[in-house]
Amino acid sequence: MSLTYRDAGVNIARAEDALSRVKDRIARTRRPEVIGEVGQFGGLFASPGADKVLVATTDGVGTKLELARLLDRHEVVGADLVHHCVNDALAMGAEPLFFLDYFATSKIDSQVFSRVVGAMADACARSGTALLGGETAEMPGMYAADAYDLAGFLVGAVDRARILGPQRVREGDALVGIPSTGLHTNGFSLAREICTRRAMHERSASLLDVLLAPREELGGATLGAALLAVHRPYLDEFRALRDVAEIHSIAHLTGGGWEGNVPRALPDGTAAWIDRESWDVPALFTLLAKLGDLEEIEQFDTWNMGIGLVVAVGEDALETALAAVPGAVALGKVVPHSAGRRVIFG
Amino acid sequence: MSLTYRDAGVNIARAEDALSRVKDRIARTRRPEVIGEVGQFGGLFASPGADKVLVATTDGVGTKLELARLLDRHEVVGADLVHHCVNDALAMGAEPLFFLDYFATSKIDSQVFSRVVGAMADACARSGTALLGGETAEMPGMYAADAYDLAGFLVGAVDRARILGPQRVREGDALVGIPSTGLHTNGFSLAREICTRRAMHERSASLLDVLLAPREELGGATLGAALLAVHRPYLDEFRALRDVAEIHSIAHLTGGGWEGNVPRALPDGTAAWIDRESWDVPALFTLLAKLGDLEEIEQFDTWNMGIGLVVAVGEDALETALAAVPGAVALGKVVPHSAGRRVIFG
Repeated sequence: MSLTYRDAGVNIARAEDALSRVKDRIARTRRPEVIGEVGQFGGLFASPGADKVLVATTDGVGTKLELARLLDRHEVVGADLVHHCVNDALAMGAEPLFFLDYFATSKIDSQVFSRVVGAMADACARSGTALLGGETAEMPGMYAADAYDLAGFLVGAVDRARILGPQRVREGDALVGIPSTGLHTNGFSLAREICTRRAMHERSASLLDVLLAPREELGGATLGAALLAVHRPYLDEFRALRDVAEIHSIAHLTGGGWEGNVPRALPDGTAAWIDRESWDVPALFTLLAKLGDLEEIEQFDTWNMGIGLVVAVGEDALETALAAVPGAVALGKVVPHSAGRRVIFG
Repeated sequence: MSLTYRDAGVNIARAEDALSRVKDRIARTRRPEVIGEVGQFGGLFASPGADKVLVATTDGVGTKLELARLLDRHEVVGADLVHHCVNDALAMGAEPLFFLDYFATSKIDSQVFSRVVGAMADACARSGTALLGGETAEMPGMYAADAYDLAGFLVGAVDRARILGPQRVREGDALVGIPSTGLHTNGFSLAREICTRRAMHERSASLLDVLLAPREELGGATLGAALLAVHRPYLDEFRALRDVAEIHSIAHLTGGGWEGNVPRALPDGTAAWIDRESWDVPALFTLLAKLGDLEEIEQFDTWNMGIGLVVAVGEDALETALAAVPGAVALGKVVPHSAGRRVIFG
């Protein structure tokens, strides 16, 4: 009997079928700059003028994927991927232009694929980003059963004169914090490890039991639901701030938490002084920290602890900035740095 | 004992160490349009003018990864990833501008990482592409031991007036083929399945035995070496052709083989008539087909069969095109299509 590609576990029709289910939602992300149709070897997008700078960013969603899979919440990670990229681009001052995705798995489940990519398309449409292309890879045996991985790639644009970054920041600048919606897409390996150990401690409890138990600390919500809150996009808040104040730089608090990200928005020789009383750490973080018996430094080096974006503005723009974004808090300020950590909690 | 992110299997320092080993090679990919340093939330690249169109493409290398891992040839897949993207972009007529990569694994092996990403950087440098950023994801438990996945994203640019595509193609156009270097990055699940079944048939042979046996059909070379030939870039050939002839469209023969790709470069109502005698199918393909007892149609629907790029040019440009690219062959021509398959072998 002769062998076929299908015998080897790869079915190109399956990928095409999966894609056809979300074609309409992808079509709704189209922008005037998009040229031609989907299915070309490369997506075409009219270049912005030479006064613009392209901002390119790539991200994954980490092991939040495993939780989404376990709790059948595939839409969450699709939206997360787009939002993560959008937030990284706006941290440079950019508006999003277009997005491409990579979806890889051992065997495509059309339903899961269309839920994930459909959610990506919807997130793109909401943020005005064209979903310009993607790659769907079926790789038999490379992934655990039902596991899949995602990578996103986004290109945005910013006026050359308005690129954000450490070079704009001065000592004395005010730091504004904008609340997160939970862990976003970072620190899930630690969160999952905490839940897994908890399940082992509690006799006859499974990971699912731990994730699905209503928690008094969370107002009766479950850890699973709290962990799977969507990584929110900050595009509206970024635009509102930009319209009223001169933004100097932005840190998007992702992998590496505070110390891993805030210094990326600061010039050499400076540090961030942060008033720990300026916001309440959400119950999800304190509950996880309690369950895992975590040192505070470990928490702040891994998670965003309730603040997703840290924005540096001139001291005199602080009040305007706070008024422009409901929920924003005055976190602290930029101070001289001598040695050691560059995020100093006071 | 308190838990740390490191206990959960994620070590951010490991990723940073791995990256630091290839910093110099990444730095060599820098182009004048690149602004600022690595480590920002997004990579910055000066926009080409508004007369240009951006071409964006994303690819993986499929289960060639598994063979590269088995035979300790990690550099191959790093270069493959860049070349695959470069070729997809030039199929639209574009020159590459910048590239980003996504590297995901359960636990980062700094040595493997630096071999893969170092080879990516070198491939970027050779093709004049800036390696603008990347994401390194450590996801404990999501990948098989030692397995990793790669995705690449590339943005190129083409003059608006010179975008290639089916709209330029006319009946009677000549089709020029440029030789591949083997399977490139597609059809590896089938190739691996063939080798695995072969190992089961031959008593006491392992997959490695099958891959490492010298083959008379390959002039004494091994299947492993032939399968792991680098997916070649066609940038030099593309430029040489473009300089002497008006290219109408290009098909890059990747996943889906001939029928899956050639029609992407043809307008509706046309088909490709291909003279099967115009080139010799390389021994690697005939050997695999023999070992796997494959129908010919299955081979051509999965593999490139020795032709990596199919270029449509005007009939009168055929001789000039053939003279410009050593090894190029006159494959056939564009003919009317009525029904059924759009690649017709004669």
